[in-house]
Amino acid sequence: MSTTLLTIENPIFKQYVFFATVLAVKMSLMSFLTARHRLGKKIFNNTEDAALHKKEVAFNDPDVERVRRAHRNDMENIPVFWLLGLFFVMTEPSSMAASTCFRAFTIARIQHTIMYLHEKQPHRGIAFIIGVLVNAYMAFAVLYHFW
Amino acid sequence: MSTTLLTIENPIFKQYVFFATVLAVKMSLMSFLTARHRLGKKIFNNTEDAALHKKEVAFNDPDVERVRRAHRNDMENIPVFWLLGLFFVMTEPSSMAASTCFRAFTIARIQHTIMYLHEKQPHRGIAFIIGVLVNAYMAFAVLYHFW
Amino acid sequence: MSTTLLTIENPIFKQYVFFATVLAVKMSLMSFLTARHRLGKKIFNNTEDAALHKKEVAFNDPDVERVRRAHRNDMENIPVFWLLGLFFVMTEPSSMAASTCFRAFTIARIQHTIMYLHEKQPHRGIAFIIGVLVNAYMAFAVLYHFW
Repeated sequence: MSTTLLTIENPIFKQYVFFATVLAVKMSLMSFLTARHRLGKKIFNNTEDAALHKKEVAFNDPDVERVRRAHRNDMENIPVFWLLGLFFVMTEPSSMAASTCFRAFTIARIQHTIMYLHEKQPHRGIAFIIGVLVNAYMAFAVLYHFW
Repeated sequence: MSTTLLTIENPIFKQYVFFATVLAVKMSLMSFLTARHRLGKKIFNNTEDAALHKKEVAFNDPDVERVRRAHRNDMENIPVFWLLGLFFVMTEPSSMAASTCFRAFTIARIQHTIMYLHEKQPHRGIAFIIGVLVNAYMAFAVLYHFW
Repeated sequence: MSTTLLTIENPIFKQYVFFATVLAVKMSLMSFLTARHRLGKKIFNNTEDAALHKKEVAFNDPDVERVRRAHRNDMENIPVFWLLGLFFVMTEPSSMAASTCFRAFTIARIQHTIMYLHEKQPHRGIAFIIGVLVNAYMAFAVLYHFW
């Protein structure tokens, strides 16, 4: 059995770790953005939270729901990147191919959230598509390389 | 420290990579199914998207919401498979045990979506249970093997 | 290229596998908790499920929606732990640092669900913050160690 490519001495893997971690932090920050809107506008979806502020529960605040949709879109796309990026490292891509994929995906997902929160189309759609294309490219590279 | 099992020279790991990638592609396709319904029926949940088509936002279209529920169910189950499948490879299962688990889970999840979109019960429920049983078996195998 | 740290002979990795698996099982159980409420109160969000019980669909049952929110919160946080925990193992943390992080996160997430279902604040909020702090610590350790 050969030596593994999944060590930090492999510069491609190291790049993967960096961008995957940045995306993990970015995705986690969405919770705080939701919380900021909830606390700022006093919009709560749990009776016990609303009671602390003497308010009724509400599920239809457009700002809160917008952040939640952006967060859900992250959950639909970022874990797929974490998985496929790891497999992609094992195909021994060129450093340029790997860094292009990892950077493009990371920037596209940050851009997606910014455009989502600023209600900008078609910019949000373009950012979404770039993310999906990177994932599709990595999936194709993995299947093509190993089968 | 022993050599790793997480290399593509390990045929069990290679199988895992294949099925995990297929599931990543399958899950990503759900976004496009949602988009197809949204564009076909002109049902949007963002004001900026609805404005492009001169429509009001709507959150209660049964077809769109059905795809979104199926997608959410994928998010609840497939990342668990990605994690447990990886650990399961490290228990050095027989090739037959591994391929049975990976194939059964993958087929069950595809079947789950098809049955969900066609509103078929108890078929959707059976497919869901098969997926959960595979995950439960792998979790048990991991805990039993290492502790 | 050095030997990998991702083998079960590495006791830190072994700890990671244990807690990550426990969290996978815990998260999967949320589906059954939702199902129990749905079947107990006969609240369904699919026409085909409601038809089996001769009921209308409903999306606003507080107990069902509460479990679903707790489940979604798991999906927002636990996969981030799976990823960052794996990277954290590669920073060769002390056994005590690793076991503190893994245990604290796992206990906090279980506590979060219990407090969510019992409508207890600020306990739910504290449990949530502990989980986020562990993830933030691991992300920082990974970025600091490798860059």
